[in-house]
Amino acid sequence: MFSKETYTQRRALLKKTLGSGVLLFLGNDECGLNYEDNTFRYRQDSTFLYYFGLSFAGLSAIIDIDEDKEIIFGDELTIDHIVWMGTQPTLKEKSERVGVDITMPSADIVSYLHKAVQKGQAIHYLPPYRAEHKLKLMDWLGVPSARQEGSVPFIRAVIAQRNYKSAEEIVEIEKACDITADMHITAMKILRPGMREWEVSAAMEAVAHAAGGDLSFATIATVNGQTLHNHYHGNIVKPGDLFLIDAGAETEMGYAGDMSSTVPADKKFTRRQREVYEIQNAMHLESVKALRPGIPYMDVYDLSARVMVEGLKGLGLMKGNAEDAVREGAHALFYPHGLGHMMGLDVHDMENLGELWVGYNGQPKSTQFGRKSQRLAIPLEPGFVHTVEPGIYFIPELIDLWKGQKKFTDFINYDKVETYKDFGGIRNEEDYLITETGARRLGKKIPLTPDEVEALR
Amino acid sequence: MFSKETYTQRRALLKKTLGSGVLLFLGNDECGLNYEDNTFRYRQDSTFLYYFGLSFAGLSAIIDIDEDKEIIFGDELTIDHIVWMGTQPTLKEKSERVGVDITMPSADIVSYLHKAVQKGQAIHYLPPYRAEHKLKLMDWLGVPSARQEGSVPFIRAVIAQRNYKSAEEIVEIEKACDITADMHITAMKILRPGMREWEVSAAMEAVAHAAGGDLSFATIATVNGQTLHNHYHGNIVKPGDLFLIDAGAETEMGYAGDMSSTVPADKKFTRRQREVYEIQNAMHLESVKALRPGIPYMDVYDLSARVMVEGLKGLGLMKGNAEDAVREGAHALFYPHGLGHMMGLDVHDMENLGELWVGYNGQPKSTQFGRKSQRLAIPLEPGFVHTVEPGIYFIPELIDLWKGQKKFTDFINYDKVETYKDFGGIRNEEDYLITETGARRLGKKIPLTPDEVEALR
Repeated sequence: MFSKETYTQRRALLKKTLGSGVLLFLGNDECGLNYEDNTFRYRQDSTFLYYFGLSFAGLSAIIDIDEDKEIIFGDELTIDHIVWMGTQPTLKEKSERVGVDITMPSADIVSYLHKAVQKGQAIHYLPPYRAEHKLKLMDWLGVPSARQEGSVPFIRAVIAQRNYKSAEEIVEIEKACDITADMHITAMKILRPGMREWEVSAAMEAVAHAAGGDLSFATIATVNGQTLHNHYHGNIVKPGDLFLIDAGAETEMGYAGDMSSTVPADKKFTRRQREVYEIQNAMHLESVKALRPGIPYMDVYDLSARVMVEGLKGLGLMKGNAEDAVREGAHALFYPHGLGHMMGLDVHDMENLGELWVGYNGQPKSTQFGRKSQRLAIPLEPGFVHTVEPGIYFIPELIDLWKGQKKFTDFINYDKVETYKDFGGIRNEEDYLITETGARRLGKKIPLTPDEVEALR
Repeated sequence: MFSKETYTQRRALLKKTLGSGVLLFLGNDECGLNYEDNTFRYRQDSTFLYYFGLSFAGLSAIIDIDEDKEIIFGDELTIDHIVWMGTQPTLKEKSERVGVDITMPSADIVSYLHKAVQKGQAIHYLPPYRAEHKLKLMDWLGVPSARQEGSVPFIRAVIAQRNYKSAEEIVEIEKACDITADMHITAMKILRPGMREWEVSAAMEAVAHAAGGDLSFATIATVNGQTLHNHYHGNIVKPGDLFLIDAGAETEMGYAGDMSSTVPADKKFTRRQREVYEIQNAMHLESVKALRPGIPYMDVYDLSARVMVEGLKGLGLMKGNAEDAVREGAHALFYPHGLGHMMGLDVHDMENLGELWVGYNGQPKSTQFGRKSQRLAIPLEPGFVHTVEPGIYFIPELIDLWKGQKKFTDFINYDKVETYKDFGGIRNEEDYLITETGARRLGKKIPLTPDEVEALR
């Protein structure tokens, strides 16, 4: 937990930005896997953590700007709780640690909100992403779930704060990145043909858990890297396979790391693997070189895609003018996702507040396949933390679809592409902080070039 | 997945038992940790798994007994899904594997239900345990969440089937128990003073994950065993500590294992630890010896409590007649939980259907502290699978409370108890199948006696 002052100052700035109204913060409850008391690991809502720091189920909070009150709603523990779950500080004590002096029983929030509505105060809440939040908004405010869009001024005010990571947040994010790097290095060392994918993911996840953290998202550790979010890990690793890992740790405070790497199942990359890997590596390095305040991240995405097209032309997989290919979207056959996303208390930071507000400043997004998956388009600013994660994939289903539709035949040599359908995919990913003058990689370095990867095998 | 016939026969029996009406099965959806797309690991609802075998988000099912129809509702994958999540069999293909020939788009379930209501058919559903289920029942059937109690005939019919584990289920449960045993043996081998608790839990959990499974519940691995469900694992293990582990694996098919063990941080138990451990061990062994068809599990609980009282009398911690002490509830100062619970597709099998129906056959439960935590009271029957997990704890908060209230001073020597307040807790747990003639331990044996535990240290 940060100091009391940190949370108090964050709330003060939020109040100043919004000026008036009642801000409702829905903390997260436990969520049962297969019955109510058998819960998933507990994860507090990130915005609740940002302003109130308390990672406990059963809390809600209100900032009543008009009345100048900050209140945490929750219930004290009974002796049954203490016997089963251990003793804890009281809610009052917990709340004081984050600079909040008023606490009330959970049940009181409904009458507080109703009185505020009667007084004509505006009630602001953020878009719900859990069914339990939707039920609360229905019960407490009478808003049907289809109309629970959230308050745009509240959304924008939160983003305007959470976008800029403070020095103490950077320290936490680097902790997450260091553990994340250790996860990847562990996998790179142990991977051998004959293993099941889940043996690798188990070893990586143990690194995050043994460091007292958890996973910032569900691990990808697969011989089918061409499937972008593949969470099936039951395959046996074969000689000649490429193994793609996308995994990250979350610190106890909730900050995320997120890295990707691609490793040959054998000691060395094959020649064909190395050729494509070198192109992906160039995309990565050119993108990193371009990072600086003021550059729209969509421009960096375009750059990474052009670097790929030039490279794939060298292998005979693409042809024509790279800039035209990228503008028209031909590159997306091989690179169907974005270059990166904001990262902080969420691995895709503030995704629950809406990608358009976080990554596009409210402007409309492209609908082009591939480009539409770019989550961050706006000019970079000092304090932003985001990922850099270009990739190259050969997705048989997509190749068949586009080839059948004769799509982009000016740019794509489908005959050559056919010979790569068993290739898999390559992605590498690092996390960067935008500084006043450029950018800084966060956390320990993971092997990135083919030589660096082979040195660990 | 079991054979098509298994699922077809299970549904046929259910239809026969209920005779008429529409049975609605709510599959589980994904649940977002901190935004919608960053989900916890997926876990299908166990009753859905039992009757329909499909472990995918976004499914519901209906058995329309009156119309003799079985329908799975869900949506087919788009090309975007395939690129991001990989190719899968179609819903039609998946459904045929479990013997269901009719599939319909998700959206059609509402009109199906509305027509059934219009025709005067009874709609049966099970009690919802996730907020998403509550929202669906509100949206689909217009039942407010406070009135979504579930259908008692449906509940009882499901329990009457799931209570009796088939031979193929036993094989799956034993797989889970074998992995669970390996988790415990791993922890027993690596535990050393100076480690953080989470280093131990990380290593144990990696065993479950590397076997292609997951956890059947959140691991307990703690130096504070006296806190029954302690999930904080940041303490450093000190010489002289007792380390209590309660952890289990879940197989890919969803079957659970659940075992507990208690290990000294040092190579050997201290004399005081061994004295209490021997009593706990006697509780365990006497309970196991008593297992047989026909014996009410509440009687076995009473037996285990009496064995404890006799033992603690030997240490001067208790006094008086053991039977009286247990009847009045004095034992619960040291043994505040139950002796065990049903186990199967849920670690507390069918807990979402209601403990009173599963463990008490609908009869009322005791409200006595300790005894009220006994989840299984009914006579045991062949095919039941349940845990045996007596424990002895010294819970400072509870000791202070009872001592202050002068509770059970005829049975408890508080002066002596005061000297054990730093002791911690001891629990051992194994999983048993009731057979025609007695009971059989499921899975690999874990060290149980003090000598067996010390042999691994």
